Amino acid sequence: MQPEINVPLYETERIDDLLTHEMKIIQSREVFCFSMDAVLLARFASVPKRGRVLDMCTGNGAIPLIMTTRSPEAVFEGIEIQERLYDMASRNVKLNRLESRITMHHGDVKDAVQLFGHGKFDLITCNPPYMPATSGEKNVSEHFAIARHEILLSLEDVIRVGSQLLKNGGKIALVHRSTRLVDIITLMRQYGIEPKRMRLVYPRRDAEPNMLLIEGMRNGRPELRIQPPLIVYENGEEYCEELQEIYFGKRDSLA
Amino acid sequence: MQPEINVPLYETERIDDLLTHEMKIIQSREVFCFSMDAVLLARFASVPKRGRVLDMCTGNGAIPLIMTTRSPEAVFEGIEIQERLYDMASRNVKLNRLESRITMHHGDVKDAVQLFGHGKFDLITCNPPYMPATSGEKNVSEHFAIARHEILLSLEDVIRVGSQLLKNGGKIALVHRSTRLVDIITLMRQYGIEPKRMRLVYPRRDAEPNMLLIEGMRNGRPELRIQPPLIVYENGEEYCEELQEIYFGKRDSLA
Repeated sequence: MQPEINVPLYETERIDDLLTHEMKIIQSREVFCFSMDAVLLARFASVPKRGRVLDMCTGNGAIPLIMTTRSPEAVFEGIEIQERLYDMASRNVKLNRLESRITMHHGDVKDAVQLFGHGKFDLITCNPPYMPATSGEKNVSEHFAIARHEILLSLEDVIRVGSQLLKNGGKIALVHRSTRLVDIITLMRQYGIEPKRMRLVYPRRDAEPNMLLIEGMRNGRPELRIQPPLIVYENGEEYCEELQEIYFGKRDSLA
Repeated sequence: MQPEINVPLYETERIDDLLTHEMKIIQSREVFCFSMDAVLLARFASVPKRGRVLDMCTGNGAIPLIMTTRSPEAVFEGIEIQERLYDMASRNVKLNRLESRITMHHGDVKDAVQLFGHGKFDLITCNPPYMPATSGEKNVSEHFAIARHEILLSLEDVIRVGSQLLKNGGKIALVHRSTRLVDIITLMRQYGIEPKRMRLVYPRRDAEPNMLLIEGMRNGRPELRIQPPLIVYENGEEYCEELQEIYFGKRDSLA
């Protein structure tokens, strides 16, 4: 074990295990916690061996943190609009001694082309706000509201900006509600991204999926590969074997 | 049992069980046999209690034959471009004494709007040719080639004509290769059909899907419901229970 890193912890924050490679993550039930969605996306995306990767709406940075374990040489960046979360993400980079591999940016995804320039990334990941700007959840903090609802960023913004930031042949991987599949596919095609790989996440064998993982390629050739179903609870209350292995870092990718 | 119906049988033809409601079907290994795809589509589509239903590319008529068992009052039509198959479909209607419920038409789907007029149907089904016009299978008969390849009819033709034939709020249900999902979704949206319900057919629990069932609504509200995975072989060589029930007519619909 290396000596402890000292990073400040603010009120309500705690340090949790990221459950892979002995990594740690600062989070807060009042502000932001990473979810299974983030873990799945970080394991689903086609992380390049080398090259430049951007996680949009990075929250506390869980997705780039996990992705570093999947690539020896790629460099990772994250962009987050909420200063409180950007700060948490930056401390998470330090906490895991990953300053040489991950750079966090405080900013609006809608300004990202101005910030980074066109055609710069080999991979973009995004676990965007899922819910329409108008819908429920009045009792959560503003931090959660911005992270969950399309208040500051729409699905179209994510795909439009992502397309502009990608190199030709670069990939964008998203996790979203499966009800939005039609919008995701039509927006990807509209912005020059061809959906190439998809996996549906079914809570149980006999249930409708509640989540989808999808990856498109800038100017890719049309042909979608749909992967085997990911059935979360295979037998009652236990995660299926593949998910246990993914979740606890024993399996590298949801390939 | 009612007395036998006398319909002519031509060379290579035989009468098989349709496996539901004691129905029979004439088919021929040299010309056309209905497939699992047809059974699944006939059980997947939202067959209206009453109203008018058209099966495009009806082949030997298996899809309308099965759909009659799911609706007490709807009237069914089929259109088939190959005279040999149209004739087989017509004899299948007689063989099952369904002349009052099913009408077969010999014609080209591309001329169907001229034949039927705009906005006439509550439901359209189609098990279209799956394969590109250029690809393999040199050794099959011309009958099979036309039924399987996009030689005379493209996916875009199916969706464009289907949209024109549908009433506002009417539905179109298709079965196709799952690799074509992106084309199907973008073409549906392009022609004013909103994809509303989809089911993926996975050969095994750990396999990629090879088929999809999808239903769209003319001018429907955007929101796709993806149904539970249909896993064909659940335990080794046996069909899963749901599929056994569907295939042998013990379960009415893949709802």
